[in-house]
Amino acid sequence: MSFESLQFEKFSRDRLEQLQLERLQATLNRAYRSVSFYQKAFDEMGIIPEDIDSLSKLSRLPFTSRQTLVDNYPYGMFAVPLREVVRLHCTTGPKGQPIVIGYTKNDIDHWAQISARVLKAAGVEKEDVVQICLDYGLFGEGLGFHYGAELIGASVIPGSDGDPKRQLLIMRDYRSTILLSNPSFALKLLAAMKESKIGLASLQLRSIIFTGEPFSEETRVRVEEELQVKVINSYSPLELPGPKVATECEKRCGLHIFEDQFIPEIVNPQTGEVLPPGEEGELVITTVAKEAFPLIRYRTGDLTSL
Amino acid sequence: MSFESLQFEKFSRDRLEQLQLERLQATLNRAYRSVSFYQKAFDEMGIIPEDIDSLSKLSRLPFTSRQTLVDNYPYGMFAVPLREVVRLHCTTGPKGQPIVIGYTKNDIDHWAQISARVLKAAGVEKEDVVQICLDYGLFGEGLGFHYGAELIGASVIPGSDGDPKRQLLIMRDYRSTILLSNPSFALKLLAAMKESKIGLASLQLRSIIFTGEPFSEETRVRVEEELQVKVINSYSPLELPGPKVATECEKRCGLHIFEDQFIPEIVNPQTGEVLPPGEEGELVITTVAKEAFPLIRYRTGDLTSL
Repeated sequence: MSFESLQFEKFSRDRLEQLQLERLQATLNRAYRSVSFYQKAFDEMGIIPEDIDSLSKLSRLPFTSRQTLVDNYPYGMFAVPLREVVRLHCTTGPKGQPIVIGYTKNDIDHWAQISARVLKAAGVEKEDVVQICLDYGLFGEGLGFHYGAELIGASVIPGSDGDPKRQLLIMRDYRSTILLSNPSFALKLLAAMKESKIGLASLQLRSIIFTGEPFSEETRVRVEEELQVKVINSYSPLELPGPKVATECEKRCGLHIFEDQFIPEIVNPQTGEVLPPGEEGELVITTVAKEAFPLIRYRTGDLTSL
Repeated sequence: MSFESLQFEKFSRDRLEQLQLERLQATLNRAYRSVSFYQKAFDEMGIIPEDIDSLSKLSRLPFTSRQTLVDNYPYGMFAVPLREVVRLHCTTGPKGQPIVIGYTKNDIDHWAQISARVLKAAGVEKEDVVQICLDYGLFGEGLGFHYGAELIGASVIPGSDGDPKRQLLIMRDYRSTILLSNPSFALKLLAAMKESKIGLASLQLRSIIFTGEPFSEETRVRVEEELQVKVINSYSPLELPGPKVATECEKRCGLHIFEDQFIPEIVNPQTGEVLPPGEEGELVITTVAKEAFPLIRYRTGDLTSL
C-alpha cells in the first residue's frame, strides 16, 4: 500500500461532492442489503437507497444512535460476512455495554491512510521517530496511528499506554521527535519529568498529537510551554475507534474533516432538524467508505459547528 | 505483501544451505561494515567476512552475548541508519538493563511471514477468529503475531494482555477459534471460566499457541483438557522479540526452526565448542535475514539439542 490519499485534499468542492455521493450510494446499498437494522429503518420510512440521489437528500434518512450499536452486539451491524472481517475492535455504549466494530482489509487500509494524513498534517516525515503512547488493544487508537506512521516510513515506537517514567527514558534515549498520546498521559509525562533528572535539553520532541479525550486550552498551553512542543488536536467520536474523523493541521485554525470518508451534518440535538452552516449543534456523521461497519447519520452526541 | 514464505519449507537441504550461505555472507558484510562491535571482534580474530565461504566455517566467528547488546544501548548494534528503521522494540538485559531492537521495513515483513508460518503450522486459516492476548507494546509479541494473522486474512482481535474475564467474554461473544497467549494467561483464563458462568459449550476455541514463557507438560495437559483445545508451542530467545525462531506444528513432534532466517548451533555452555547433532547444549543463533539488527552467533542461554 502506498500513501496516496493526500490527493483528496486537493479535490475541488464539486469533485469531492461527486465522490461523496457515489460512495454514499454504495454505502446505502450495502447497508440496506446486509444490515437488518437499516433495512427495517428504511422500510419503515418508505425509503429505498436509490431515493437518495443527491447529498441534500441525506437528511431524509433515519439516525443511528449509540444504543442501536449496543442493541446489535456483537455482529448485528456488520455489512459483510465475518470471513471478510480482518479486525475486531470494541468500545463501550452509554452504560458501559460492549460494542464491537469490524473492519475489512479495505477499512484497515483507509484507516492507515487517514492516520497518515493526520500525521502529515502535524508535520511528520520519514525521518521522524514517532512514539505512540496509546492503547494498542481493543480500543484501537494505538494500532490506527501505528499503521499511519508506518505508511509514512517513520521509525515507530509502540510505547502502548505504559509507565510515563519509562516512556520518558525512551523518549530521551531513542530521540523521539513526535509523541501521540491522550492529554492526560502528557500531564503524567510532565510530572515524571519533574521527578526525574531528565531535562528538556535532553529531549528532541517537536510535536504532540492529542487524541482520545477532550482537553482545555490551558492544558494545551501548559504542555506546549513545559515541553517546548507544538500540540495538535485530532478528533473521532467515542464509538468510532478509527479512522479519525478530523484533525488540526500545523496552522491550528480548527479541525479539518476527512470529507472523502465522512459526511458531517449539524443537527438540533432536541429536534434532529439539520442546522445551517455556522450554527452550533450536535455533530452527525455518515461514513461513506466503510465496508464492514457503515454508519448512517450517526449521532455523535458531540456539540460543534461546521 | 503476499504470504509466500511457505516455499522455504519445501526447499531441499542443499538449496536451503545455499540460501543460508548467501544470506549469511550478506549479513556478515553488513555487520562488519556498519557495526563497530562486529568490526572490532572480527579484526581481533583476524577474520574478514569473505573468509566464511562455507557454513562449516561459521564456528570461527566470535559469539555475541546479551551483555554486548546491553553495552551498545541504544543504537550501537544497528547495521542500518536510523532513517531506515521503521520500528523500535525493547527488551531487558541480564540485570534488567534496556536493550533496543530495530527493524527495517524488510525486517517487519520477514517477521510477519514467519508469524504467519507459525499460525499456519498450528492450522490457522482465513476463516479463523484469532484472539491475541499478548503484549502489543514495546516487547512486540502481540504486534508480531498480529501482522502474521493479518497476512493469512483471519479476523484478528487485538486483545492485548488485558483482563482475563473480559477476554473470556470476548472469546465467547466474538466466537474466537484461536488464542495466542502466554501459558500464565491461559491459566488465568481457566480461573476466570470457573468464576463465571461461561461454560466450555459456549466457546468455539480450537487451538492455543503458547509463546513468551516456558511451560511444563502438566500445564499443557491441563489447559488442553479443561478448554478442550490443542496447545501448540512456539519459541524465540528472550532478547529477540521477533520473529519467532521455531514452532511446533500440529503433529507436535518437536520445534521446527525457520532455517531460511536462522542458523542454529549447539555449543558446550562452558567451552563454547560446537557439539555434534543430538547432543544437548546451549542454543546459539545466527540471523541471516535481519537488516537492522543482525546477530552473529548469539548465545541464547537456552539448553536444547538439534
